Amino acid sequence: MKISQVIINGKILPTNSASLGIDDLSIVRGYAIFDYFKTIDNRAIFLEDNLDRFYHSAKQMDLIVPFSRDQIREQIYTLMKVNDIPSSGIKILLTGGYSIDGYTITTPNVIITQSELNRNLTNEQNGIRLITFPYHRPFGTVKSIDYVMGIQALKKARKQGADDVVYALNNQLSECPRANIFIVDQFGTVITPEKDILAGITRKHVIEIAKNITSVEIRDVSLEDMANASEAFITSTTKNITPVIAIDDIKYGSSPGQVTTRLQEAFEVLTFKNYGVPIVKA
Amino acid sequence: MKISQVIINGKILPTNSASLGIDDLSIVRGYAIFDYFKTIDNRAIFLEDNLDRFYHSAKQMDLIVPFSRDQIREQIYTLMKVNDIPSSGIKILLTGGYSIDGYTITTPNVIITQSELNRNLTNEQNGIRLITFPYHRPFGTVKSIDYVMGIQALKKARKQGADDVVYALNNQLSECPRANIFIVDQFGTVITPEKDILAGITRKHVIEIAKNITSVEIRDVSLEDMANASEAFITSTTKNITPVIAIDDIKYGSSPGQVTTRLQEAFEVLTFKNYGVPIVKA
Repeated sequence: MKISQVIINGKILPTNSASLGIDDLSIVRGYAIFDYFKTIDNRAIFLEDNLDRFYHSAKQMDLIVPFSRDQIREQIYTLMKVNDIPSSGIKILLTGGYSIDGYTITTPNVIITQSELNRNLTNEQNGIRLITFPYHRPFGTVKSIDYVMGIQALKKARKQGADDVVYALNNQLSECPRANIFIVDQFGTVITPEKDILAGITRKHVIEIAKNITSVEIRDVSLEDMANASEAFITSTTKNITPVIAIDDIKYGSSPGQVTTRLQEAFEVLTFKNYGVPIVKA
Repeated sequence: MKISQVIINGKILPTNSASLGIDDLSIVRGYAIFDYFKTIDNRAIFLEDNLDRFYHSAKQMDLIVPFSRDQIREQIYTLMKVNDIPSSGIKILLTGGYSIDGYTITTPNVIITQSELNRNLTNEQNGIRLITFPYHRPFGTVKSIDYVMGIQALKKARKQGADDVVYALNNQLSECPRANIFIVDQFGTVITPEKDILAGITRKHVIEIAKNITSVEIRDVSLEDMANASEAFITSTTKNITPVIAIDDIKYGSSPGQVTTRLQEAFEVLTFKNYGVPIVKA
């Protein structure tokens, strides 16, 4: 197998020799942010949205990106050319840097990686099961590397025969560890939580699409709203629109709902036919 | 300057060439635990307590330490001999390992590092100022690398002229980001929070010492308890017993209190004169 390349602080090197010194603040204090987008046919999907969010996360966490937005974009295109992995996920990671005292943020390290990405069509077609989990991410709008609770919560979900969790605290749904949550009420209105959550890029585009199809509400979503909903689905870069057929003991039906299916179709058109920067070729 | 050595997965190498591959779960998901103890005159202070807690943290986070306790202890002594840094801090870090899917825990990486440690006698003599900060660490008994909130909170403390924060949520004090908190009430009773906090090693020994001097209560500590207290102090491996002269607008006096001072003296005797494994010499 061809070994893929990564870019660390602007320098290209093979993935298997890519490393960080052990005093990086990600390793010693869990301090880092990242962003993640996909490529389809060597097109970077929604890249500018991801770059917006990447710089937002960095700013929120007092990390100064040591490259301009143009430079980061250029590095991404370079990596895409060098690797030539048409369907891939690309991650931009920004750490707290090599801290002298092991606590104070310094010049960040920037790591850009690319790896092959295959769609989970089974889940997108058949839907998944969630359980609620009592947690709310600190720094909700930041795409932090902190997935400790997500990893632990997944264990609980699997024990209960579910595929993942959705965080719910103080009677409010917020998000899944790696996806945004939507419900559809009995009138066909698409509803998704508003405050202190990750501003998902897929979420953003699904909201836009949904507005052409039905009414959309971006607001607090209570456990009662969840229980009374007719459909539910989650969105993310890798999961696209994945139907949710059950949360806890609430069943939304054995197959994806009508509104969810229409949104899936519309999102397919947007992503796979009408969107993308000019094709990058090696 | 002589470059210190570290031990990664049982192998000794110079600190400046010590690294982790970029797919380690600490870097991609903030998933790692650690422990930290000090050496004085090449004696490992309270090492067995730290090893107890290290294995506790590992177990709580589903990390299987790839070395026996005897092997880890042996590696620590080897490192102490090789480096010969009489007054030092030694950290044992255990990460989620090189995850194949970037999410699932695998065989952990173990990193043992040693660096010179100097006491902050100014703080121990004059005391420090804290502010309360609304947070409670998830996995309270685990010494996780997750210090994102601690690092952000310190910024707020410094803006307000304080040295650090103490976490307080739902009217309950819990701990500082890198230390345990104690108060002393008007009757001289030493009180420290009980539940879902890091079981500090210094905290443990201070509790033992305090029982010989006065009454001790290990229980919930409310903001009212804090406000009514006569003295306060924090404990940690690097800070020993550091008096707290103010929390928010509550002033405990311009110098360390009587009980705090007696505990400092007794702890000094315990740590510096009567404790320690046999001296390890190069």
